[in-house]
Amino acid sequence: MLGFCLVGGGFIGPLHAANIAAHRRARLAWVVDLDLGAAQKLAATHGARASANLDDALADPAVGAVMICTPPRTHAAIIERAAHAGKAIFCEKPVDLDITRVDACARTVAASGVPFFVAFNRRFDPTHRALADAIRAGEIGRPEMLVLSSRDPEISPPDYVAAMPYGIFYDTMIHDFDMVRWLLADEPVEIFARTACMLDAKVNPHRDPDTAMVTLTMTSGALVHVNSSFRAVYGYDQRIEAFGEKGMLVSHNQQPTSLERYDASGIRRDPLLRFFIERYAASYARELDEFIRAIEESRAPPIAIEDGRRALLIADAAVASAKSGKAIALPA
Amino acid sequence: MLGFCLVGGGFIGPLHAANIAAHRRARLAWVVDLDLGAAQKLAATHGARASANLDDALADPAVGAVMICTPPRTHAAIIERAAHAGKAIFCEKPVDLDITRVDACARTVAASGVPFFVAFNRRFDPTHRALADAIRAGEIGRPEMLVLSSRDPEISPPDYVAAMPYGIFYDTMIHDFDMVRWLLADEPVEIFARTACMLDAKVNPHRDPDTAMVTLTMTSGALVHVNSSFRAVYGYDQRIEAFGEKGMLVSHNQQPTSLERYDASGIRRDPLLRFFIERYAASYARELDEFIRAIEESRAPPIAIEDGRRALLIADAAVASAKSGKAIALPA
Amino acid sequence: MLGFCLVGGGFIGPLHAANIAAHRRARLAWVVDLDLGAAQKLAATHGARASANLDDALADPAVGAVMICTPPRTHAAIIERAAHAGKAIFCEKPVDLDITRVDACARTVAASGVPFFVAFNRRFDPTHRALADAIRAGEIGRPEMLVLSSRDPEISPPDYVAAMPYGIFYDTMIHDFDMVRWLLADEPVEIFARTACMLDAKVNPHRDPDTAMVTLTMTSGALVHVNSSFRAVYGYDQRIEAFGEKGMLVSHNQQPTSLERYDASGIRRDPLLRFFIERYAASYARELDEFIRAIEESRAPPIAIEDGRRALLIADAAVASAKSGKAIALPA
Amino acid sequence: MLGFCLVGGGFIGPLHAANIAAHRRARLAWVVDLDLGAAQKLAATHGARASANLDDALADPAVGAVMICTPPRTHAAIIERAAHAGKAIFCEKPVDLDITRVDACARTVAASGVPFFVAFNRRFDPTHRALADAIRAGEIGRPEMLVLSSRDPEISPPDYVAAMPYGIFYDTMIHDFDMVRWLLADEPVEIFARTACMLDAKVNPHRDPDTAMVTLTMTSGALVHVNSSFRAVYGYDQRIEAFGEKGMLVSHNQQPTSLERYDASGIRRDPLLRFFIERYAASYARELDEFIRAIEESRAPPIAIEDGRRALLIADAAVASAKSGKAIALPA
Repeated sequence: MLGFCLVGGGFIGPLHAANIAAHRRARLAWVVDLDLGAAQKLAATHGARASANLDDALADPAVGAVMICTPPRTHAAIIERAAHAGKAIFCEKPVDLDITRVDACARTVAASGVPFFVAFNRRFDPTHRALADAIRAGEIGRPEMLVLSSRDPEISPPDYVAAMPYGIFYDTMIHDFDMVRWLLADEPVEIFARTACMLDAKVNPHRDPDTAMVTLTMTSGALVHVNSSFRAVYGYDQRIEAFGEKGMLVSHNQQPTSLERYDASGIRRDPLLRFFIERYAASYARELDEFIRAIEESRAPPIAIEDGRRALLIADAAVASAKSGKAIALPA
Repeated sequence: MLGFCLVGGGFIGPLHAANIAAHRRARLAWVVDLDLGAAQKLAATHGARASANLDDALADPAVGAVMICTPPRTHAAIIERAAHAGKAIFCEKPVDLDITRVDACARTVAASGVPFFVAFNRRFDPTHRALADAIRAGEIGRPEMLVLSSRDPEISPPDYVAAMPYGIFYDTMIHDFDMVRWLLADEPVEIFARTACMLDAKVNPHRDPDTAMVTLTMTSGALVHVNSSFRAVYGYDQRIEAFGEKGMLVSHNQQPTSLERYDASGIRRDPLLRFFIERYAASYARELDEFIRAIEESRAPPIAIEDGRRALLIADAAVASAKSGKAIALPA
Repeated sequence: MLGFCLVGGGFIGPLHAANIAAHRRARLAWVVDLDLGAAQKLAATHGARASANLDDALADPAVGAVMICTPPRTHAAIIERAAHAGKAIFCEKPVDLDITRVDACARTVAASGVPFFVAFNRRFDPTHRALADAIRAGEIGRPEMLVLSSRDPEISPPDYVAAMPYGIFYDTMIHDFDMVRWLLADEPVEIFARTACMLDAKVNPHRDPDTAMVTLTMTSGALVHVNSSFRAVYGYDQRIEAFGEKGMLVSHNQQPTSLERYDASGIRRDPLLRFFIERYAASYARELDEFIRAIEESRAPPIAIEDGRRALLIADAAVASAKSGKAIALPA
Repeated sequence: MLGFCLVGGGFIGPLHAANIAAHRRARLAWVVDLDLGAAQKLAATHGARASANLDDALADPAVGAVMICTPPRTHAAIIERAAHAGKAIFCEKPVDLDITRVDACARTVAASGVPFFVAFNRRFDPTHRALADAIRAGEIGRPEMLVLSSRDPEISPPDYVAAMPYGIFYDTMIHDFDMVRWLLADEPVEIFARTACMLDAKVNPHRDPDTAMVTLTMTSGALVHVNSSFRAVYGYDQRIEAFGEKGMLVSHNQQPTSLERYDASGIRRDPLLRFFIERYAASYARELDEFIRAIEESRAPPIAIEDGRRALLIADAAVASAKSGKAIALPA
């Protein structure tokens, strides 16, 4: 039974808390949030203890793992404290937004020897995983092109956007950058990015990019395209298309029901699942299970801090390209 | 170059006339219609001659084939005149609505030795044919169930309905009865039918059945379901589903374009192709070509008068079942 | 917190046990099975107590509800004991195979006043329910035809088949009979059924029908077709198509992933979800939740014993029709 | 009746010849090819005259239009001769590969006043056109992203590739560049291109790019992605996806039949239509009809030489970007 301390009760925290509570071999021991009321509320739902001070939880020997769900800029400090306390770490992406801090975290984690996991949940989506398995099984031979559509139904609130400029790369496409590396088992050598501000000033007052296209060239020569938007009115648009010498694999979108409605105006189906909570419900449960099993079996969790670091490097280069209008080379 | 005399310039006549005109090895020589004006109008479009008298055309040695597109009750007389004149015959279904007249026609045709073809056009639809080929190739092993949906977007005009009561069996499902025999290469031994009047009295004043379901049991034991309606508001609904020991084959509906529209309310595609003219455009061209090739190669056309007779027997039994509420045995 | 005694640890028992265990406001208190070892094994998984004697559990005041997962012929006796003990009853379909016993149960249940629920789980499937909601919202106007495909990937073991002849009606289509009544909010007045034995004698040694087609005529005049097979090699084939004056609604099949594979031979998708456990996972969880909420809110559970009785009457008539070859009238 | 002289009897010539022959208001008068035998063969099929000398046909007053189907480097000279002879011109894309020659042609055509049409056939595909109409009707509001997949099933023969390096831009994507301009009614201001050689040296001995990705930025700020390959083993992959503030439109691929095959391994459909001849059959017929109607109605044909010039400018810039690794600005 792995005891968890969940840090950060907002946003994705309640989803992870519920998954921990539902897992047969895990329990939610603590919820920590600077807003003690928020911590208490979430803790109460699952019979956990609450605190505004992480030390309270880290001191509890019943806590085997720390799950970090706070805003990105706070991750590094929590990682370091958890590592020093010898707790396994499950960290929401990105590890941090500053590559030097990520490097420092990596050193701290390595020195401490604690298991560390970056929660790139999409790797655990059943369809994406079936696509990955098919690539590895050689179904399309050598991959030649990858096309990813990664579109959110809405932009984050202005203060969230203000706290993380270029969130379209750091917060959204960072998932795709990880998927590209994982699906192709290869690294990009170059990136070119173009962005646009298409949303109204009312919802995007900081005029941060809300629309983006990226081209990646991989070591193998394979070409990759990713596009993103913060205004997919028809739902969370999450598609991956892998093209190779023997064919193509497509991970299609998903819908709440399989109902089809025919009338004189045509044939209608549901809009897409609304957002990540609905679309990736299975992947969130599976990534937690994989993390727990890795701890139980004393092996490294399936996504390392180096994966978080690589994805951030690509996001940094995307921003540099978008700002300069030039293709940016990526370190080997 | 096969010269055609087309009899019956209304309804399906213009479609067949255009196909004859477009065929490389055929020409439209005559259009015959009791309404001379109608004959002249259609003839003019294709540079053919027109008459209200079939004898004019039958006397023309340039006419090698007679294509019968008139109302069903007139078919038998025209068949007999064409057979006596030694012309190949292409006859719209049904051959006739009276089985004794069909038998008489069959004898006349056999005695005359002229090639004869019943225009069950659906056998020539590319997708239905691919389904038939797959059955014959053993893809689903022994066929066990067949499910056909055969729904029109509208009911015929009241006078047409009055002239052919139970048209849902004699005019519409007769196609399906032929398809069942052809797809399974088997004969039904029993039929059960149920009908309903669902349309408003305004469009169906004679209260002739406009909705129907049929169960057929085949010699092989395979079970068959057919359903029909004269009110498919979303277009001409034409599907066939063949289920067998190794799998299932489905001939799906078709649409004008492959466009898909996503918005906040869902995902929309076109309604189905509107009616038989649009849906079976390819099959009409192909059946004509098959007929012409059979004449050229001095072999029997691919659908015989016996096929027309069998389909009519099944339609008669469907009516008997619908009227009596009992399953009706079919002659071997 | 509603305490459950689950009776019958085999077949569907473990699925229901897991759903009870996962439900926030329920707990599995007892597992009862004549095979004590089986009871103990399932009980141990969920921290429940085990017994071979139902009385042990009925005597426990912590038990508020009895969930009956035993073979059909044992249902009536358990229902009566649970009713006398004043426990709410959640009963797998069919209530019983003998209509007089069902009637007796209905009287006992009514007299005892305990809440009673027949587990027609398909009513809780999200897509089927969306279809039902769309009918009720008038999207297709008056329903005119209903077409249900209800095909299992395999036949039950010979001893199971021997214990329930015509299981294709009593065990499988009984779900569809319930769906028809529920979807149309209407009762059938007549049924016609045809069956076949298509499976090899090795898997169907008793030559019980493994393939069936049924036509139902409803009070409203609407026509209904249901087809079933015990050999859908491509997975659990569960489709509903509702056709009406304003259009058509289709509840389509579902697949494990949305992956599509393109190669030179064509485009491939996954086979269907394998069987009811996979296909109706959500519906099993939802029916349990609906049952629990009804108990909590002191209202009648959403499917009454009368629904079980009606479905059985239709199944009885289907058997009578299949045996006699005649359409069978159903009591109003 | 518009008389055509078709120049260039190979490749796409026979398709256009057949469409001319089938058109009610057109006739194929001449086929001209340096290979007189080829000209005679194609001419004979349609009852036209043949010559190896264009002057023979240009001197014939029965010739109202010249259709140019020769290799690109010969287009300019033929355009100029046809313009001087006062014939309407239907020219396969590209107008020429040298922008200065295109400019010269444009001046000659303008001076002569003859109608001129560049055969960007995809604009006439029913589904692409429905997508264009939907954009213009405001269905997706302001377009924000366009994603085009434009993949051939095979590379051209080595000598053809040798004659036109970077054919992936000049011969294939030039269609997409035209579509982008047409769909968005906007011009690109910048292009970034990346290419790869993925095919075996046996089929691509000149190591000309056979795989490419392009990003275009439009005047409006909209972002466009195009990808191409000469190895789509599953057929001719032609998709367009237009994303905007109110939704998304997708022009999907098309298949020879709508048959679906279910077996234990999954669900299969046909591969895509094989290549442009099959996929764009309707668009070739429609572009011819549009050209003829424009001549008949004395209005400018629907695609001007300026459209050909713009597409070539974009292709030139794509090559410059692919060679330099830099984004290239496009002239306003």
